[in-house]
Amino acid sequence: VLHLLQTAWSGPAIPRVVWEYGEVSLVKFSETGVSNYSTLLLNEDRGVLYIGAQEAIFAVKMTDISNKTSEVYWKVTERKQKACAAKGKSRETECLNYIRILHEFNNESLYVCGTYAFQPTCDYLSIKNFTLQGRQEEGKGKCPFDPAQRYTSVMVDGELYSGTVYNFLGSETVILRSHLRTEYAIPWLNEPSFVYSDVIRESESSLDGGDDKVYFFFTEVSVEYEFNSELLVPRVARVCKGDLGGSRILQKRWTSFLKAKLICTLPESNFVFNVIQDVFILKTPNWKETVFYGVFTSQWSNLEVSAVCAFNMSKVEDVFSKGKYMQSATFEYSHVKWVRYNGQVPTPRPGSCINNEARTLNVNNSLMLPDKTLQFVKDHPLMADPVKPIGNRPTLVKKNANYIQIVVDRVRALDKKLYDVMFVGTDKGLLHKATNYGNEMHIIEELQIFPDSEPVLTLLLSKGDKKNLYAGSHSGVVQVPVAFCEKYRTCMDCILARDPYCAWNPQNKICTWITKEDTHESNLVQSLNGTAAACRAEDVESASTEEYKVKPEGFQELKCLPMSRLAKVTWKLNNKALSENSKYRVVQNNLLFSVTEEDSGTYDCWTVETVKGRQYEQLVKRYSLIVEGPTKVLTTSPTAP
Amino acid sequence: VLHLLQTAWSGPAIPRVVWEYGEVSLVKFSETGVSNYSTLLLNEDRGVLYIGAQEAIFAVKMTDISNKTSEVYWKVTERKQKACAAKGKSRETECLNYIRILHEFNNESLYVCGTYAFQPTCDYLSIKNFTLQGRQEEGKGKCPFDPAQRYTSVMVDGELYSGTVYNFLGSETVILRSHLRTEYAIPWLNEPSFVYSDVIRESESSLDGGDDKVYFFFTEVSVEYEFNSELLVPRVARVCKGDLGGSRILQKRWTSFLKAKLICTLPESNFVFNVIQDVFILKTPNWKETVFYGVFTSQWSNLEVSAVCAFNMSKVEDVFSKGKYMQSATFEYSHVKWVRYNGQVPTPRPGSCINNEARTLNVNNSLMLPDKTLQFVKDHPLMADPVKPIGNRPTLVKKNANYIQIVVDRVRALDKKLYDVMFVGTDKGLLHKATNYGNEMHIIEELQIFPDSEPVLTLLLSKGDKKNLYAGSHSGVVQVPVAFCEKYRTCMDCILARDPYCAWNPQNKICTWITKEDTHESNLVQSLNGTAAACRAEDVESASTEEYKVKPEGFQELKCLPMSRLAKVTWKLNNKALSENSKYRVVQNNLLFSVTEEDSGTYDCWTVETVKGRQYEQLVKRYSLIVEGPTKVLTTSPTAP
Repeated sequence: VLHLLQTAWSGPAIPRVVWEYGEVSLVKFSETGVSNYSTLLLNEDRGVLYIGAQEAIFAVKMTDISNKTSEVYWKVTERKQKACAAKGKSRETECLNYIRILHEFNNESLYVCGTYAFQPTCDYLSIKNFTLQGRQEEGKGKCPFDPAQRYTSVMVDGELYSGTVYNFLGSETVILRSHLRTEYAIPWLNEPSFVYSDVIRESESSLDGGDDKVYFFFTEVSVEYEFNSELLVPRVARVCKGDLGGSRILQKRWTSFLKAKLICTLPESNFVFNVIQDVFILKTPNWKETVFYGVFTSQWSNLEVSAVCAFNMSKVEDVFSKGKYMQSATFEYSHVKWVRYNGQVPTPRPGSCINNEARTLNVNNSLMLPDKTLQFVKDHPLMADPVKPIGNRPTLVKKNANYIQIVVDRVRALDKKLYDVMFVGTDKGLLHKATNYGNEMHIIEELQIFPDSEPVLTLLLSKGDKKNLYAGSHSGVVQVPVAFCEKYRTCMDCILARDPYCAWNPQNKICTWITKEDTHESNLVQSLNGTAAACRAEDVESASTEEYKVKPEGFQELKCLPMSRLAKVTWKLNNKALSENSKYRVVQNNLLFSVTEEDSGTYDCWTVETVKGRQYEQLVKRYSLIVEGPTKVLTTSPTAP
Repeated sequence: VLHLLQTAWSGPAIPRVVWEYGEVSLVKFSETGVSNYSTLLLNEDRGVLYIGAQEAIFAVKMTDISNKTSEVYWKVTERKQKACAAKGKSRETECLNYIRILHEFNNESLYVCGTYAFQPTCDYLSIKNFTLQGRQEEGKGKCPFDPAQRYTSVMVDGELYSGTVYNFLGSETVILRSHLRTEYAIPWLNEPSFVYSDVIRESESSLDGGDDKVYFFFTEVSVEYEFNSELLVPRVARVCKGDLGGSRILQKRWTSFLKAKLICTLPESNFVFNVIQDVFILKTPNWKETVFYGVFTSQWSNLEVSAVCAFNMSKVEDVFSKGKYMQSATFEYSHVKWVRYNGQVPTPRPGSCINNEARTLNVNNSLMLPDKTLQFVKDHPLMADPVKPIGNRPTLVKKNANYIQIVVDRVRALDKKLYDVMFVGTDKGLLHKATNYGNEMHIIEELQIFPDSEPVLTLLLSKGDKKNLYAGSHSGVVQVPVAFCEKYRTCMDCILARDPYCAWNPQNKICTWITKEDTHESNLVQSLNGTAAACRAEDVESASTEEYKVKPEGFQELKCLPMSRLAKVTWKLNNKALSENSKYRVVQNNLLFSVTEEDSGTYDCWTVETVKGRQYEQLVKRYSLIVEGPTKVLTTSPTAP
């Protein structure tokens, strides 16, 4: 209690390099009159990125998204729009058709849903001639009514799984697949805000005949905790692909819905990140090695602090398949409290998928589950044990930023090791590219990807050799390469970037993007631990000299733009360090002084960057200043000094 | 859930004026070789400030604390020090005698306690000859063992009430008066950190024959809430002065110990300030009008954010005398949960002081209380209803500061209204002087009162006409006037300070400290709502002109030091606004440029301060720059431009 004030953050987490908007060239896509490019779908076999926006769907080339190949508009009818406005919604902003779902349905068509003026509707889109087939389906429970509502969906073997709102008012929320859904009950879902869902193909490598599982990630109001006000908790939930519902109890309801709490907490200060914003699943051939990354913020969000936590999927499975359940109990007829249930649990285990063990009990599908098991899972959807992050702490913590989107790339570096590179989007249109080198957080780059600091609504990552990120926002879509190796002009900058995608080529003196073949090449230099000793002296003093002729009047500003924000700047005149005095002033790394005739000389801007206790010096800019004679003969006579 | 990211703080709460250390003259006291000046006691009748430090007690004049009148040293014996070190404590830092309690005992003596090498000991100090009387008493339960432990104590009618640790290990904590103490039970006190205690003389104006009450303020680990980890709660507790303990149940224990939660929360974001750091009680003749101020921080304190909440004492009394109790219940033999108790409550009401109602039941003191009442209060020390702050929100919220001490002065301003001026000390040696003008937070001044940014350990306020603050720290004590009116040199600065202590005298053109008589004087100008329209034009342009001769070489910096941090600076040359260009640069309000022969002229630094939508301009500094001829005749011939 007493030492609370002394806890500190693990590090500043300052991005080493910051690219302002326009500093790196990005390919953009937007269409006049169309906004809200929130839904992206990538098909790498076809080389196409599908974009769902306000009342329109586009297909663009994935290698150059400015190259539009097809488009189709899907507008709301006048009558629908009027009906929507009559219910009190805004005709101009809410009573439109915001495309929210874009999935591959089969080789011929995409499945598309839109909010459709608060009357969610789905249709099929022919890939060949890019037209809607007019087979409109009810979108309720698949797609949100309100364009501002959060939702998630995933298409698994032709069936849509969704987490969203079920009614106009937004009071009913479901996790749904066709006729199967969650119960309307607070213990099942309590004001959830869905962020992500995906399938894990467990059946492919399961020893116990287990089923594929669909995982959902969301934040909801907790039932098990209370404080002054409602406490939010981040959750992972799952259902089994083979679930058919119960026969008497839980008819048309999931019999395999279980959920658990995710923990993302700074252990030294017990600071809790309790709002999950997005998830990225790094799938592996063996599902047990699957890792997922979540970005989290805090419920008390005026603090502007975010974290990334990584979790093992096998730990989630352990909690669901072996953990204890939570149980509610009523006090004095009114207070409901939740506690760990220590009593007996029926068999087959409630909430588990049909596996070999169930089959030996003659339970071959969920319709055959005994009432006892069904009643238990109906009453106990919440697990007692939480899922803890890898290393029991966040992988990345960042102050003064709200992280809302994430994708992760697993990269094989020159040292042949695998590194997970996180790409995180903020609510102000920034993209952070970060790694964690042995508990040392390192933000390689910050990049402004949208001009007006709008939120990053969606983030996708392509596979293949030269990878790209695709980010959607209100105003458009941008295509961002995962690295800007060529921007690092010196060996030192290339190495100190500690970017797994980049290595220094000493022959050509360029920072290059490493390809798969390069990992066998020995002359490239990469040092992700930040040791730049391999850079030779000539590289260090590689700055070009700028000749600069000035008159001995007025005041001069010599600019220095070091690439690294982690570096400190010093100025030298004819190789002697300059100190700030009445003559020289350093303002934002630039040298300011008033020029006299004696000031000709060589002005050098040097940076010092400290990595793991070692200092690296680099000449960033050299000016050869030549002061020319005065512009006119002065006729005034000398005065006393 | 979705709109969490959009909540914002109510205001920046930037101190309008900042005084660095040394900018205002403060009277200091410290003694060579003595540290830890943590305990202060003021006797205004005697005009003396008593100071308890490490192994020493001093008496200094309250009007000039650098004037020491008496001193006495109270060192630990060699034997005690050895015994303490043998128990694993630091001989140099912990095994000393830190004076922690200094109270008026009677007209002849003070009551003094010290940690005494982890064996707390008390004694009496003769006021006349300033010597310890050698009547050493056991200090266990009155004074902490460990100098780092927080504690509180108050002397009421010759009896010491204390909240502190009772044993060497620090595992037992008590609220104690002589032989009466709290139960050792988690529901009574759960790892409390005591911050303040004082008596409220309710008996003087009580209609129901009620007793005086002693209130305690502390932070403890909650029993009623849980989240990922232990949740702290700020508490107010009280006992009755007339309590004698129970006869069978609660023998030698308080029969009147009740506690409740204090709430200090930002309603718009539900941000919870759950650690109370200090309390100041503004006593009033009628106790029901008593208001107390608490400074709070958050359990997740790496956020550096603090709040001041004000509470009505009558609301505390309402919770204790009319509110529901909390009740514990056990689930499945192991989980204890706390819920509101809605059942019947025995009479006399458990935990209440003996009043007329009890006396009609023939209960004249606590020994006569029935077992049912005693057993109930033993099991239900915690009230269900919290105490909410005045206005249901903090009076002051400050980011990037840890508030740890507070005193409050109720000042009658020129408009004859009363204003509560808060003086808040931080953990970095800063003092903030702030007011709340109709839900508008205003920090009048920030003042660095200690040179080495050490925590403000204690803060006292004198009464009387020209009030002073006394602040203790590790290195010494400082005496700080409550206002620095004379530092405001212009009418505008005096008015815009919005300092209830200060007013502008238009005749003498000085900012003066208002005294009681001044409130009847009509020619003084004060405008706490920040309207400075009363300042006449000649006052606005009152800056002195500085003549400044320079040579047409080198680069010049014209300094401008505006008093207000809320003001924006603009520079004018010969009454025309200067914009930043290749010639002029403004760095931290100063104008930088390189001088040529054409640059003679009048350079003005103006500030614009916006208060409630109105802008106030002020000339802060005027330079009359005279560029003299060059120092030597230049012989170079003209070159092409």
